[in-house]
Amino acid sequence: MGRVRYKVVVLFNLFIFVKKKMITWDQLSMYVATGSCWHSNQTTTTTTTTLAEQQSSQSKSIRQILSMDNTGYCNDSFNSIRSSTSDEDMVEIAGSTLDFSNTEDVPPLDRDYGSGDNPGMEEVNGVPKLMDLLDEPVPGVGTYEDFNTIDWVREKSKDRDRHREITSKSKESTWALVNSVCDAFSGWLLMLLIGLMSGALAGGIDISAHWMTDLKEGVCLNGFWFNHEHCCWTSNETTFQERDKCPQWKSWAELIIGTTEGPFAYIMNYLMYVCWALLFSFLAVTLVRAFAPYACGSGIPEIKTILSGFIIRGYLGKWTLVIKTITLVLAVSSGLSLGKEGPLVHVACCCGNILCHLFTKYRKNEAKRREVLSAAAAVGVSVAFGAPIGGVLFSLEEVSYYFPLKTLWRSFFAALVAAFTLRSINPFGNSRLVLFYVEFHTPWRKTTWLGHYPVLEVLVVTAVTAVVAFPNSYTRTSTSELISELFNDCGLLDSSKLCNYDNANVTKSSNELPDRPAGNDVYTAMWQLSLALVFKMLITVVTFGMKVPSGLFIPSMAVGAIAGRLLGIGMEQLAYYHHDWAIFRGWCSPGADCITPGLYAMVGAAACLGGVTRMTVSLVVIMFELTGGLEYIVPLMAAAMTSKWVADAIGREGIYEAHIRLNGYPFLEAKEEFSHKTLAMDVMRPRRSDPPLSVLTQDGMTVEDVETMITDTTYSGFPVVVSHESQRLVGFVLRRDLTISIDNARQRQDGIVSTSRVFFTEYTPPQPPNSPPPLKLRGIMDLSPFTVTDHTAMDIVVDIFRKLGLRQCLITHNGRLLGIITKKDILKHVAQIANRDPDSILFN
Amino acid sequence: MGRVRYKVVVLFNLFIFVKKKMITWDQLSMYVATGSCWHSNQTTTTTTTTLAEQQSSQSKSIRQILSMDNTGYCNDSFNSIRSSTSDEDMVEIAGSTLDFSNTEDVPPLDRDYGSGDNPGMEEVNGVPKLMDLLDEPVPGVGTYEDFNTIDWVREKSKDRDRHREITSKSKESTWALVNSVCDAFSGWLLMLLIGLMSGALAGGIDISAHWMTDLKEGVCLNGFWFNHEHCCWTSNETTFQERDKCPQWKSWAELIIGTTEGPFAYIMNYLMYVCWALLFSFLAVTLVRAFAPYACGSGIPEIKTILSGFIIRGYLGKWTLVIKTITLVLAVSSGLSLGKEGPLVHVACCCGNILCHLFTKYRKNEAKRREVLSAAAAVGVSVAFGAPIGGVLFSLEEVSYYFPLKTLWRSFFAALVAAFTLRSINPFGNSRLVLFYVEFHTPWRKTTWLGHYPVLEVLVVTAVTAVVAFPNSYTRTSTSELISELFNDCGLLDSSKLCNYDNANVTKSSNELPDRPAGNDVYTAMWQLSLALVFKMLITVVTFGMKVPSGLFIPSMAVGAIAGRLLGIGMEQLAYYHHDWAIFRGWCSPGADCITPGLYAMVGAAACLGGVTRMTVSLVVIMFELTGGLEYIVPLMAAAMTSKWVADAIGREGIYEAHIRLNGYPFLEAKEEFSHKTLAMDVMRPRRSDPPLSVLTQDGMTVEDVETMITDTTYSGFPVVVSHESQRLVGFVLRRDLTISIDNARQRQDGIVSTSRVFFTEYTPPQPPNSPPPLKLRGIMDLSPFTVTDHTAMDIVVDIFRKLGLRQCLITHNGRLLGIITKKDILKHVAQIANRDPDSILFN
Repeated sequence: MGRVRYKVVVLFNLFIFVKKKMITWDQLSMYVATGSCWHSNQTTTTTTTTLAEQQSSQSKSIRQILSMDNTGYCNDSFNSIRSSTSDEDMVEIAGSTLDFSNTEDVPPLDRDYGSGDNPGMEEVNGVPKLMDLLDEPVPGVGTYEDFNTIDWVREKSKDRDRHREITSKSKESTWALVNSVCDAFSGWLLMLLIGLMSGALAGGIDISAHWMTDLKEGVCLNGFWFNHEHCCWTSNETTFQERDKCPQWKSWAELIIGTTEGPFAYIMNYLMYVCWALLFSFLAVTLVRAFAPYACGSGIPEIKTILSGFIIRGYLGKWTLVIKTITLVLAVSSGLSLGKEGPLVHVACCCGNILCHLFTKYRKNEAKRREVLSAAAAVGVSVAFGAPIGGVLFSLEEVSYYFPLKTLWRSFFAALVAAFTLRSINPFGNSRLVLFYVEFHTPWRKTTWLGHYPVLEVLVVTAVTAVVAFPNSYTRTSTSELISELFNDCGLLDSSKLCNYDNANVTKSSNELPDRPAGNDVYTAMWQLSLALVFKMLITVVTFGMKVPSGLFIPSMAVGAIAGRLLGIGMEQLAYYHHDWAIFRGWCSPGADCITPGLYAMVGAAACLGGVTRMTVSLVVIMFELTGGLEYIVPLMAAAMTSKWVADAIGREGIYEAHIRLNGYPFLEAKEEFSHKTLAMDVMRPRRSDPPLSVLTQDGMTVEDVETMITDTTYSGFPVVVSHESQRLVGFVLRRDLTISIDNARQRQDGIVSTSRVFFTEYTPPQPPNSPPPLKLRGIMDLSPFTVTDHTAMDIVVDIFRKLGLRQCLITHNGRLLGIITKKDILKHVAQIANRDPDSILFN
Repeated sequence: MGRVRYKVVVLFNLFIFVKKKMITWDQLSMYVATGSCWHSNQTTTTTTTTLAEQQSSQSKSIRQILSMDNTGYCNDSFNSIRSSTSDEDMVEIAGSTLDFSNTEDVPPLDRDYGSGDNPGMEEVNGVPKLMDLLDEPVPGVGTYEDFNTIDWVREKSKDRDRHREITSKSKESTWALVNSVCDAFSGWLLMLLIGLMSGALAGGIDISAHWMTDLKEGVCLNGFWFNHEHCCWTSNETTFQERDKCPQWKSWAELIIGTTEGPFAYIMNYLMYVCWALLFSFLAVTLVRAFAPYACGSGIPEIKTILSGFIIRGYLGKWTLVIKTITLVLAVSSGLSLGKEGPLVHVACCCGNILCHLFTKYRKNEAKRREVLSAAAAVGVSVAFGAPIGGVLFSLEEVSYYFPLKTLWRSFFAALVAAFTLRSINPFGNSRLVLFYVEFHTPWRKTTWLGHYPVLEVLVVTAVTAVVAFPNSYTRTSTSELISELFNDCGLLDSSKLCNYDNANVTKSSNELPDRPAGNDVYTAMWQLSLALVFKMLITVVTFGMKVPSGLFIPSMAVGAIAGRLLGIGMEQLAYYHHDWAIFRGWCSPGADCITPGLYAMVGAAACLGGVTRMTVSLVVIMFELTGGLEYIVPLMAAAMTSKWVADAIGREGIYEAHIRLNGYPFLEAKEEFSHKTLAMDVMRPRRSDPPLSVLTQDGMTVEDVETMITDTTYSGFPVVVSHESQRLVGFVLRRDLTISIDNARQRQDGIVSTSRVFFTEYTPPQPPNSPPPLKLRGIMDLSPFTVTDHTAMDIVVDIFRKLGLRQCLITHNGRLLGIITKKDILKHVAQIANRDPDSILFN
């Protein structure tokens, strides 16, 4: 059982595997460079930041960034990448394109730790007091640059500070108390809003996509805004047997040449079908290209990266939301082999991010906002499948990085609200199965020359899809309807060709449905399904990652469902004609329900999807919520487990992980255990051959010394030590803070010149009478940098980075500072180990 | 709507609140001392460990420990506690009873870090090589003493080492490869076994409890092992209308005095009912007392503590399993107001723990074993309710501390296996609702004088329960049947008194069921239910925490269900007699389903349970799985949320947390955010007035110096520094390792005397010719102790302890060692802050 299904899984994974190897071996950089759906031109400037630029960059509107994006649309940068192809440099290579491997280490300007005593933001715009300038927050404090990693520890600490302040104030006045209660409930309110908004959007998308899909075939005379089903439903002339035929619904042939029969009408319908498909896909790709390049693809890998603490500004902005919503409808309606689950997750996350701006608590804190986004991802799956519990588990299992229990509860609430909003809009009546819809995204298609011309590519793929799909009724309908039909078990009244069983000459007891001989239509259907299987497999691979919103869930479920149904029918006929075989005798007693082809289809869909995404619990729960009934859980679970094991044996990465790795996103995978026996001293910088670590001393340097060090190095931050001799660690200063503070002091503070001495100590010793005033910088120093010893095993270090969400960690030996490990160093190290020793993580 | 329900919740919480305050204010120590279900006498010896004792203690069988337990049964230690009553010392007080606040800091002997190069266990029993003795593992390495906290970081690191070794060996031979594959799949096999075993046990418990409950009323003549339902089911003379009456089933009155009618028969039945109840409860409490004191109560708070890393030896042992299984049946059958969900979780965890011994991977690693136990907790809930998804979420939300994604998937698998094993044993036919059954435990009963006499107490409570319960049919049946009846909606053929509606004079359209006038029986039922409500509430409070396995889920659900059903019937009659009222007019159109009393009962049960336990997602999912159908999720969720909010406003702790706190278990709550602005230097030891930290120097001490330091202090470990002047940290040595190593060296190594110098350095300088040989102890030193600076905010420190599972952390200032923070210090600090500032965490 399930052999065909596994073949599908194996084929998929073989493809992934071959592509991966190809990419690894030749010209990795080129694929990586263009594998990313979003480009990076606007970030190449961020390495050479000056104060002015940084401040102006804070005020850049999303619109500006997006308009810059247009000039840097993915494939334009294709030819500009010429760099090494070694695996070892993978993170670097991706970095050279996306430019965050350099900027990733430039930490954010959120070190307001030292200024905790002066939280008065209102003084910032006033005239600064001369010497206390640096104790006050500077504009831009607490924000991050684009393509940077946030520091979870600091963000959470900031939120606790804010919370403490509100709580302590709440005892002072009633107004502050009300404020504090509002603050406590703002999270719930936000969840409610996200649920309502996402549910409404998903409902709108479903209705529009349904209508536009039908528009390819014809139009309703009662009103062009009715879809086929709705048009005939309101008609009085519809019979139950032919419930999709009614005089009000006119096919294009009928409208244009006045007849529904004959080859001419067929060709006319065919032509209109292709034309509409081309129009829709052209609109989709053009809109994406023109207004929101981030709207293409599924978005799940990027959201995963964002949730892990990376910042991609505008990725969840309002333009992305608007364009993604519109183009998703267009892309689905065009009949391309894509789904809408991933894009719906992206849409829900955009809603979450935009609604966050209503609440200070979430607007200003990147960590808190990510909690909301985790919940929004759950909402996305909830509306995609109508499966709230599955959505929560999907967010927990697949997408989220930091998922506290509070978020579990809130995301469940939001997912429920969204599911019920969607249901009250009721796009598909009461049929649960049609809530089916998911998706996914891969980058490997980038090898074709078509990749250079995204619009042409989309049009060509659409044309091929439409031309091939139209003649076969199983590919002509929308994929979700196909899946729904495949999952369906044959009732007596079913008009589907798949249910055309030979009821006349049933030889056994009369009232049982299963194990009947197949009629001619079933054999026709089987041929058509086989063709559809081949076509879907090929076209889905080609469609992956085109420049339109696209998902892989539905196509891969369709592939699995077709394979499963075919196998199911085959088994059924085998059981009918050979019911005396040993394997059938035990469990196929005459008259009992023996083989259910619909269940085979369901299990096949789950297996195929599981093989592609490596989802486990969430997959089973989603399928369970879709189909209802615990009795199907066991085969679903067996399928999900087997397909995961088979797929893992071929290549350990799911499609999201592969996407993230190929795009070089700085994502520290939490599922894989790092199991190599290296020590912190093997990974830290500087290496043995490198020059020693650049450090500041707490009292021995002048402004000029510091400025020289900043100019000479590109490090993101500098440890402060007691003295060069002792190398005892005092604290850590970020490059950005240092630059801003010195520039600020030079401009506004009297007497700060190049020879002024810089002090990081608590008390400044009295200066000689003629010397310039000292510059006190203790305020910008992080007094609690994380340290580990050089003998710490790397598995522990990786654990610390993952669990605490660190950006960097200092290395000491016997109390002396030795070096530093950044998140980038860890990612590189993990990638190196994985390449050198690929099967070391197989049996985990 | 729901007012009665909330009153119940409020009442429950008021009770909890009052009790809590009482305990906090007067004689906390006494309650804490005896509030613990398990005692601690056997651990008072652990502070004065010698090598010999430790080694012998390793080989103590569970049986021995348990037989020691008998002498130290809970209440015996009641009068021995005389200590301070201040809140500040809470952890200390509990510690003085349970003896872990002293021993908690005595870390385990698992520091095999330095001996990684010599993993040959087979050499241990051979003749030790003279000078390399300490590089080999000493027997007992890697185990912990009872009532100690494990070090998660080290345990996980150890597992990764083991895994690495297997992987690297697997390339050498086929056998090693097979071994490695087996190792990889052992986790799944273990899950399968746990699922099968727990499911089978739960099935056995259900069947036995059902039979013994019926035994209180009568016996089956066809065979005494048939229960009432089964007896009449096999009979031919049973009619559908009177399906619980058949000649084969004889009530005790019928058997003894030969009649079923009349007051004499009633009294005889009454008497037998009480006698059987007393017999069962006597057996239960005696068995618990004699063989496994740990078997009493629910076990969930203890399991939560164990999962957080605490060790309570024997708590999950085979004797506990056997006795708990037997006494659970007895306790449930005796008709006491208790449920069996919590005990089933305990039983499943015992299965998990015992089965762990089959696999080296889990037997030897405390962290890995806890992953298995998390899954086992999910299995427990799964079999208690037949709700596998709810079980996984319960484990995730309520019980587990460390719950990686791998565990999510595995626990889902195990929960499913268990649910299907239970179903195939099929204790209750196909009725899902009867799988209902949960429980819970509180310690507050301890104030009564009865608490001194556990057996007498159980007998008195049983007698009262039986005497009061018998006359009322709603309290006479088992609680789960009561709940099932309350949840049930009235069909036309229902024989329940609750469904006795006045169908004769229906004035509206004839075919609708709801909104009918109640018949006389309904009014009788309402009176009986009201009495049952009062009785259940009172007796449940008294029954909590008796010395028998007991749970609170079912009793609290029953209380909520009764209240909900009463409210529902009230609303229904109100709607019938006043259907023109504004509130009914909108949604009670004649003939439509307007008020469903069964739904009210369900929502009431969820609300009451939610108020007691503060479960959220898992509660809703469990109820959803019990009842099926998304349509009930919204009222259930609203109920769970409202009851949580109301309960949180009164007191923030759920019953498990309260239990943990009152018993003083060293549990670092992960749900509460620590939000007080203190720094590490405020919490660390030594305080400013204390003597300086006891440290070892890496090369300056003799064996005698070290021994003196060990004798003079009680610290669990000592930092090693370069020199007293520099205070630069080199590493950390555990007291236990140090003692063992020196004893070992003195016994076996030539020439180690008191004047031998102790070296923690990598290279030993050449010694003067006449001096004794040096003692090299670098092998037992932890080279990567965790450090933070003194300026680190305590919220960050608490986060680090929680997320990494640390036992201690060293504090530095400018690279110099300043002090140490242990888990105990943190727990004390959190408790202090919470007491000083109780509402600071309210709006979180």
